[in-house]
Amino acid sequence: MMRLRRIEGQVRGLQRLVAEDTYCIDVLTQVSAVTRALQSFALQMLDEHMATCVSDAVAEGGEERERKLKEASDAIARLVRS
Amino acid sequence: MMRLRRIEGQVRGLQRLVAEDTYCIDVLTQVSAVTRALQSFALQMLDEHMATCVSDAVAEGGEERERKLKEASDAIARLVRS
Amino acid sequence: MMRLRRIEGQVRGLQRLVAEDTYCIDVLTQVSAVTRALQSFALQMLDEHMATCVSDAVAEGGEERERKLKEASDAIARLVRS
Amino acid sequence: MMRLRRIEGQVRGLQRLVAEDTYCIDVLTQVSAVTRALQSFALQMLDEHMATCVSDAVAEGGEERERKLKEASDAIARLVRS
Repeated sequence: MMRLRRIEGQVRGLQRLVAEDTYCIDVLTQVSAVTRALQSFALQMLDEHMATCVSDAVAEGGEERERKLKEASDAIARLVRS
Repeated sequence: MMRLRRIEGQVRGLQRLVAEDTYCIDVLTQVSAVTRALQSFALQMLDEHMATCVSDAVAEGGEERERKLKEASDAIARLVRS
Repeated sequence: MMRLRRIEGQVRGLQRLVAEDTYCIDVLTQVSAVTRALQSFALQMLDEHMATCVSDAVAEGGEERERKLKEASDAIARLVRS
Repeated sequence: MMRLRRIEGQVRGLQRLVAEDTYCIDVLTQVSAVTRALQSFALQMLDEHMATCVSDAVAEGGEERERKLKEASDAIARLVRS
């Protein structure tokens, strides 16, 4: 949650930079920083998801195991490709 | 500017999802959407930068040309790698 | 294995394009195709790894479970960031 | 050209790793290395393209300038998104 609030602050910072006509390249450097912060947040969420939901489903076995593994795999593919 | 305001709204939406204990995978889908929105914003800024600052510097030639091309190239590398 | 052989063929195709002085933009389009093929290969490997090694370790529990989850998480982070 | 030959060697190395049943995670680490090598090659090509073709078209002006800027921008978008 703290991370997302910080990211929201970074996006507001971007708006300020644009409003103040900051040099494009400096805005782009900031955009890359926000993108990396979002990725870190996503990777942390994914870790927790694998250590809890996916682990539980794997222990349970059966159809739920398949479903959760497929779901995690699709989410990872979206992160890798975005 | 409108784009950044929309992205800020998306990040606030993410906080709401987390606060409401939304299923991790659905949060992650949203994070991928925000990342893509940030990338589109960055690509649009880069386009404008190349069509204005870089073009002007190229027309001017000399040291300024070298400096602007190098700067743009570094910004592109940061975007590709983030 | 077939996938990797096809990727090797694509990389050789890139060398041919460069040797024949193909227009840069067309070479770059091909490079993006090879990068996507490599990503698909990595995602498929990761899927199999999670459905076998990680699942087994999770079922086993204890230290091995922690180690395998951490390892998978680090591999995902490398894929997302590369 | 040397870079692409090295990348071809890396892809053959990947096939060897898979054939020898190397641990998935170690294969994935190698895949990330090849992806980064391809990205570096693409970024270098793009640099040269901007310093030559795009620069020339910008100096020339007119329709050719528009076309080359648009083409470069599309290629950058493909790299950022792949």
